[in-house]
Amino acid sequence: MDFLKDDERLDYLLAEDLRIIQSPSVFSFSLDAVLLARFAHVPIRSGEIVDLCAGNGAIPLFLSARTKANITAVELQDRLAGMAERSVAYNELEKRIKVVHGNVIGIADEIGYDKYNLVTCNPPYFPAHEAAEKNLREHVAIARHEIHLTLDEAVKSASELLKQGGKAAFVHRPGRLLDIVTSMREHRIEPKRIRFVYPKEGKEANTLLIEGTKDGKPDLKILPPLYVYDQEGNYTREVSELLYGEKA
Amino acid sequence: MDFLKDDERLDYLLAEDLRIIQSPSVFSFSLDAVLLARFAHVPIRSGEIVDLCAGNGAIPLFLSARTKANITAVELQDRLAGMAERSVAYNELEKRIKVVHGNVIGIADEIGYDKYNLVTCNPPYFPAHEAAEKNLREHVAIARHEIHLTLDEAVKSASELLKQGGKAAFVHRPGRLLDIVTSMREHRIEPKRIRFVYPKEGKEANTLLIEGTKDGKPDLKILPPLYVYDQEGNYTREVSELLYGEKA
Repeated sequence: MDFLKDDERLDYLLAEDLRIIQSPSVFSFSLDAVLLARFAHVPIRSGEIVDLCAGNGAIPLFLSARTKANITAVELQDRLAGMAERSVAYNELEKRIKVVHGNVIGIADEIGYDKYNLVTCNPPYFPAHEAAEKNLREHVAIARHEIHLTLDEAVKSASELLKQGGKAAFVHRPGRLLDIVTSMREHRIEPKRIRFVYPKEGKEANTLLIEGTKDGKPDLKILPPLYVYDQEGNYTREVSELLYGEKA
Repeated sequence: MDFLKDDERLDYLLAEDLRIIQSPSVFSFSLDAVLLARFAHVPIRSGEIVDLCAGNGAIPLFLSARTKANITAVELQDRLAGMAERSVAYNELEKRIKVVHGNVIGIADEIGYDKYNLVTCNPPYFPAHEAAEKNLREHVAIARHEIHLTLDEAVKSASELLKQGGKAAFVHRPGRLLDIVTSMREHRIEPKRIRFVYPKEGKEANTLLIEGTKDGKPDLKILPPLYVYDQEGNYTREVSELLYGEKA
């Protein structure tokens, strides 16, 4: 099996001691994927996890270092699903991570309703109409813009997959806070934990981490803020540990 | 005019160089009132402001130091409205602060619809049913619990008072975030700015400041966090300045 195609490269996930196939022109995971994988409440010893909008499989790979649960990675784009599959194979994780090349909308028809403990999702952030204005490559446009999947559709799919009491964790922009909480409640996922991510002290939040419980009771906690950079422009200790491991 | 009754005392508002009548058994303002008065976008030179659930008038007094606008303080409880009125008189602010002893529900019938630039409100935080279990004095129970006013009713009254483009600012518990944003949107107040208040670094938020614009467009900002205490248990510099003034 050829692991790399075109301009792809094999990057290190240092904290997890894994490798991941990325491509500057097609898809590279972002810090948001790292943050979501660490934010989510993960079943440790067993269970079933789904990652929606899996891209090149970064979140499933991160999660595989934290749990023995089975992980299903769902990705619409053939090329990205292929990258995820090859990364899984390279790390010899085929028994624990299954890559499904399919549409998030209606995915429960294929992989099962009401059976998962955790669904993670780093969905497209931006409205579809903005993609046209930006002249993006197609892979990037689809991954970042709500062209084939709206936020509400992502939340609905998460809810369909989850068993009662299962958790769904999302990362998004703070400006969509009201949309996401409205959508979660509409689809029976009660928001329980929110953490705002700030680029540095004194700035407005630029990322939102949110987790809810299917059919949970209202009891929302706002966790301590997470800062990405310190005043000198270096990663804060917390982010540095997420990226490079505890000993960094 | 006798300024003080029973166990009332005349406390200093140091940052504003004003005095306020308080009573340990009836009502004393909290830090939340200070935070809300500073958080709200205040029309500086002119305009019309209403403070709902005004208690002993702390927020109107704080605001009077920041604006030349007229301020109407609405308080249901006779005893508290009386304290507010006497504090206003003591500070010789009768021309700028009017105390209305009345019910927040339907108050626009009395003081006017669609005419105010800003409505502030530090409403009762706790469910009505919890008051009975706590054996509180009546004044305190009514001020703290949703006995005579629910959150949704407070938001509705704020919306009725506001002109288009006017702002409503509330302080509440983070656990009610979803309720308050849902209620605001339902009553045409689009949430624009949220600031979470943390007792100290590393703890969950315990207070929520939120401001919205009547008929505004969706564009929510999450402001930098506000910490009340530092690691030594002293007020942070920001809170200290709010309480004691810039030179503290």
